[in-house]
Amino acid sequence: MNVSDTGEFGFIDAIKLNTLSDETTVVKGIGDDCAVYRATPEYDQLITTDMMVRGIHFSEQTTAPFDVGYRLGTANISDIAAMGGIPRQAVVAVAMPVDTDLGYMSALFDGLKEVCHAYKVNLIGGDTVTTTGPLTLSVTLVGEVPKGEAVLRSGAQPGDLVVVSNTIGNSAAGLALLLAQIKGFNFCKRAHQRPEPQIKLGQWLRQQGATALNDISDGLSSELWDIAQVSQVAIIIDEARVPLHEETYKLAASLQTNPVDYALYGGEDFQLVFTAPKSLESSLQDLDGITIIGEVIEGTPSVQAITKDKTIRTLDGKGYNHFHE
Amino acid sequence: MNVSDTGEFGFIDAIKLNTLSDETTVVKGIGDDCAVYRATPEYDQLITTDMMVRGIHFSEQTTAPFDVGYRLGTANISDIAAMGGIPRQAVVAVAMPVDTDLGYMSALFDGLKEVCHAYKVNLIGGDTVTTTGPLTLSVTLVGEVPKGEAVLRSGAQPGDLVVVSNTIGNSAAGLALLLAQIKGFNFCKRAHQRPEPQIKLGQWLRQQGATALNDISDGLSSELWDIAQVSQVAIIIDEARVPLHEETYKLAASLQTNPVDYALYGGEDFQLVFTAPKSLESSLQDLDGITIIGEVIEGTPSVQAITKDKTIRTLDGKGYNHFHE
Repeated sequence: MNVSDTGEFGFIDAIKLNTLSDETTVVKGIGDDCAVYRATPEYDQLITTDMMVRGIHFSEQTTAPFDVGYRLGTANISDIAAMGGIPRQAVVAVAMPVDTDLGYMSALFDGLKEVCHAYKVNLIGGDTVTTTGPLTLSVTLVGEVPKGEAVLRSGAQPGDLVVVSNTIGNSAAGLALLLAQIKGFNFCKRAHQRPEPQIKLGQWLRQQGATALNDISDGLSSELWDIAQVSQVAIIIDEARVPLHEETYKLAASLQTNPVDYALYGGEDFQLVFTAPKSLESSLQDLDGITIIGEVIEGTPSVQAITKDKTIRTLDGKGYNHFHE
Repeated sequence: MNVSDTGEFGFIDAIKLNTLSDETTVVKGIGDDCAVYRATPEYDQLITTDMMVRGIHFSEQTTAPFDVGYRLGTANISDIAAMGGIPRQAVVAVAMPVDTDLGYMSALFDGLKEVCHAYKVNLIGGDTVTTTGPLTLSVTLVGEVPKGEAVLRSGAQPGDLVVVSNTIGNSAAGLALLLAQIKGFNFCKRAHQRPEPQIKLGQWLRQQGATALNDISDGLSSELWDIAQVSQVAIIIDEARVPLHEETYKLAASLQTNPVDYALYGGEDFQLVFTAPKSLESSLQDLDGITIIGEVIEGTPSVQAITKDKTIRTLDGKGYNHFHE
């Protein structure tokens, strides 16, 4: 059965069940001109939007429909994590070819709802249209953060530590593995297909006083350049300290590529990169899945890396540019 | 010059100027993982999203790029009007073919910014991706309404008046005129190309105690059916009282079509249809551009119309269904 059999309203009926995770903030969900919700007093509001196109951002070969929905939710929730915020309300707009399979869309929305439930996000509205092009999805997410406490990219100070969460480059390694149809390597494949946003860590970093914070959606190099440019500082990292998963090392060895490049230029890890005052060094070192990879110094905005052979190279300015690949 | 020449970041640089209308509510606009804004204490938050696809919702033949942007903004702002709300913050996601002309996109964003400025909406964020399909745009708009006062579709009561604003069907008539390349009829053409949301009227209706409220985006018949079904009432209107513009009568006469059908089944007028207690009759009658067209009665949810020849017909249940046309 495809969407033209059920029509727009049949499709909406099919996906509007099981969409609320925290009803206390919702006055009116799906079904009116707007959804209506309550903001928390004394909290700032956060908003972010992400769009995904079939064949560009996901394909049958690499990502099951459930995972497409999950990752779409993660991309948005991760932006809230990158402000130290709490995700709250989501709306989703969908442009579908008329022959879109209803089972595909249903599985995709199951994945989106799964990640929404996992992070207490309400799906409260949307729009559905047809397209002559590929399936296109856009999620907008609203979150909250205590007033004045959003962690921007602009607060990095010379002397701060540069820190990342967990392992980086898994998603790019996973994508390479899936495209090449290499067996095994299930950790990296799953990291690509069903990445998790770092909501708890983002909130903890806000409370601890992280000075600048980004999620790694476009590659570590690009995110560090963002922080350097907006904060007007230079950043230097030690490539050997960038935490990679053992599968990434194994893949790089077999392909004779530089393993750290998956982290620097890969993207879509949805881990966090942040700067923090040196005074936090000991509490950061006590945490599992936290690695100090460099420091912030004075100077013209730039990102430099100490390589394996102890030379210094300037990292490329921007990671993934959708229009130049 | 096209978008692949400037790249994603060049494009964002080109459109991010002149995006704020009311800076007092914005903590951080374009340029971080999320935008940050302030909600008004004791106000509920409204959210709506609309998507438009080139070749489906607009085309070169009927709509200049400036007007595409303007109408995209209007569609969203109108949803806030339909709750009696105040529009506040917008984000826009764009999927562009790599050969998209930068001048086209710049004009489109000029139109979007124009309508945002006219209704004091801040454009505070977005996302830009490539697509192998047609240009696809998605705007999400956040608005506000005093706590508990959003005007839903569900409040129509037997005995209420059924009322519309200004003239209906102009946009459908305008589209027919543009597609047929008929000269003149500039009022209806402009109504199609650059419709205005009814923000002030929506707020006034909320203050006056309108019981149910919709904007006319899918045709008057469809909007009335929504109110009837959600409010669990029957609605009867007098077709002769549905206010049409003189150009619509003239077009219908020349094409030998029924003029009221442009209003009932056309859509995209972005006028308001509402129900209100009979006690408001005299204050409504004093207003320019307000016409009582029928009343709410008890009964199985339905929408009936008294025709020109004084028979009664049941109007079709749904207007424009994107997947069945």
